[in-house]
Amino acid sequence: MKVGVLGGGQLGRMMAIAGYPLGIEFGLFDPAKDACGGQVAKLHNSPFEVTEELKKFVDEYDVFTYEFENVPLELAEYISQHKPLYPGKDALYYSQHRLREKQLFVDLGVPVTKFSKVDDRASLLNAGQEVGIPFILKTTTLGYDGKGQYRVTSEAELAELADKLFPEDGEACEHTTYAGVSEYIAEAFVNFTRELSIISVRDQAGNCVFYSPAENEHRDGILHLSVAPAANLSDEKLANLQSYARKLLEKLDYVGVLSIEFFETDEGLVVNEFAPRVHNSGHWSMEGSITGQFENHIRAICGLPLGDTTNRSVSAMYNLVGHDVNRSVMTESDVHLHWYGKEIKDKRKVGHVNILAENYDSLNKKIEYVDGQII
Amino acid sequence: MKVGVLGGGQLGRMMAIAGYPLGIEFGLFDPAKDACGGQVAKLHNSPFEVTEELKKFVDEYDVFTYEFENVPLELAEYISQHKPLYPGKDALYYSQHRLREKQLFVDLGVPVTKFSKVDDRASLLNAGQEVGIPFILKTTTLGYDGKGQYRVTSEAELAELADKLFPEDGEACEHTTYAGVSEYIAEAFVNFTRELSIISVRDQAGNCVFYSPAENEHRDGILHLSVAPAANLSDEKLANLQSYARKLLEKLDYVGVLSIEFFETDEGLVVNEFAPRVHNSGHWSMEGSITGQFENHIRAICGLPLGDTTNRSVSAMYNLVGHDVNRSVMTESDVHLHWYGKEIKDKRKVGHVNILAENYDSLNKKIEYVDGQII
Repeated sequence: MKVGVLGGGQLGRMMAIAGYPLGIEFGLFDPAKDACGGQVAKLHNSPFEVTEELKKFVDEYDVFTYEFENVPLELAEYISQHKPLYPGKDALYYSQHRLREKQLFVDLGVPVTKFSKVDDRASLLNAGQEVGIPFILKTTTLGYDGKGQYRVTSEAELAELADKLFPEDGEACEHTTYAGVSEYIAEAFVNFTRELSIISVRDQAGNCVFYSPAENEHRDGILHLSVAPAANLSDEKLANLQSYARKLLEKLDYVGVLSIEFFETDEGLVVNEFAPRVHNSGHWSMEGSITGQFENHIRAICGLPLGDTTNRSVSAMYNLVGHDVNRSVMTESDVHLHWYGKEIKDKRKVGHVNILAENYDSLNKKIEYVDGQII
Repeated sequence: MKVGVLGGGQLGRMMAIAGYPLGIEFGLFDPAKDACGGQVAKLHNSPFEVTEELKKFVDEYDVFTYEFENVPLELAEYISQHKPLYPGKDALYYSQHRLREKQLFVDLGVPVTKFSKVDDRASLLNAGQEVGIPFILKTTTLGYDGKGQYRVTSEAELAELADKLFPEDGEACEHTTYAGVSEYIAEAFVNFTRELSIISVRDQAGNCVFYSPAENEHRDGILHLSVAPAANLSDEKLANLQSYARKLLEKLDYVGVLSIEFFETDEGLVVNEFAPRVHNSGHWSMEGSITGQFENHIRAICGLPLGDTTNRSVSAMYNLVGHDVNRSVMTESDVHLHWYGKEIKDKRKVGHVNILAENYDSLNKKIEYVDGQII
């Protein structure tokens, strides 16, 4: 069985590494000649378009998946016409568009924050009433790690933003929009106590398994630390998280790993967004769970049975963002380096360290130790 | 860091898979165009000789290792003159020659069975007195899984074998010798209760770590099952195994993973042989130990600190020899398939299944289950 992955970054790389022991071969497709997945699998270089190179790629592999949710729909369409693509096009259709995604959650009965569509001056000015101030304005498509987002905390800021994005005397300049997108979603600000994410997997027969939800901590808008299982999570909330994930998996007739982010608030859980792929907040599972998220994703898309997702112990993923780590951490028991083979650049994810421990106290001590070894 | 491996079989393959998460790149060198390691790493095809292709291979990588002990010494010599080769030439010099190997163990004070050199009719006939009947005659070089070996259980068999290998009227025919080797070692038959092996690792600074010794079971002369830790092993024997391994590691100024096989007898431990490489009887460590043998081998040769070798739980490696296994085993908790991507052929190692369990009872039940899924 040969798997073709759209995207040759660290996620595609780790899919290949996890799938090799199962006897599966991998090819990665990426416009970048130096995509880090190319160090561990065959790399096909071409833009993400239906080119001759893409057609050859589709011919060469048996089943297809992707490592990022912004796969152009026409590309997904082309592949689906010729070979199995997991997760399917529906997952992309919803996850690429914040309004469709939010509405889908509403339809499934998953709690969302108040939101409204903004595509002109009137709808933006009206958003203050619709969702209440403060709110966050996000482009409906593209944008990540806070890009293409505006925070509105007062009527004055709202007026100012309206002048910027939708001036009364005409069109907004190209440079005031993010990536040319001028459709937005206004989302009521969520007062959350912490962010939780749940990684789930569905196989081709419809069986679902769930990883322990993780508690995520960000630094400068980028995931810094995930701890699983999230401490002090009530059985009721755990059941809700799994039930919400199952609804989405079934609605999308999903195959593979799905990740969903939630805010925990004093009033309960509120969904943030989902990603139709393996996820940074699930990297702890590589050693922290009996079967890691990458292996289970590959099992699912290749028609193999899913593996046990039980935690081996309490577990953390410490992201290496723009920084290296002293290799001395490798001497610490059950501290596992995952280095992506990328050049170190500011704000770039270059690796992560998985940390397992017998209990949270011991885990926190190990996290502190790793924190002290960042260079 | 780029590692070049001599040999592109399953051991080279699993070294690459284990080294990738550390950000290390791999190239494998093998005469076979379809060597299974080529599915996961760059494969360089050429005979094991100092060819132009080999010289290019040596130029391209930073540090070298091998997956088999019969690397020609002149090849090892060439590489060592240009780049680091771990383990070094000494390890090959001894492990390629059963007489040198046995004498080395004698010199180190590691208990061996009685042995004598046989290279003509007189020395063969004399072996009956020297080591006692029954004995096993083995070529001093080459041969594995019982190839190039003769079992002598009576004076009559001895006379017959002498006529075959060293006829009075001249030279033995080429076809009565194994691979053209006509130097032998006679080894007294060892009445053993079980076979044990110990995997150890030494880093470039001289630090040594040891895996739990495994108990090995063979079928038709090929390793079938390894269980680690070996049950009912006395503290004294454990200490002896580690002490013997340490002596050999230090004598050879060894860097990397070393495996040594022992017979356990009513009179104590007797060494069988060593292999200067990762070993089939250590495959259980991939999930069964906190740091697997492949990762620790790569750490050692790349100058990285060694990882914890503690067992996660009791653990077994079930070899897939000439047979496939039903993929339903993958649903069993902590049962891990390792498939080498090779065509299934009689007596060929095509994969293994690692099995972890809380205790030996539960382990044995899982082994029985896997046994029932062989197809």
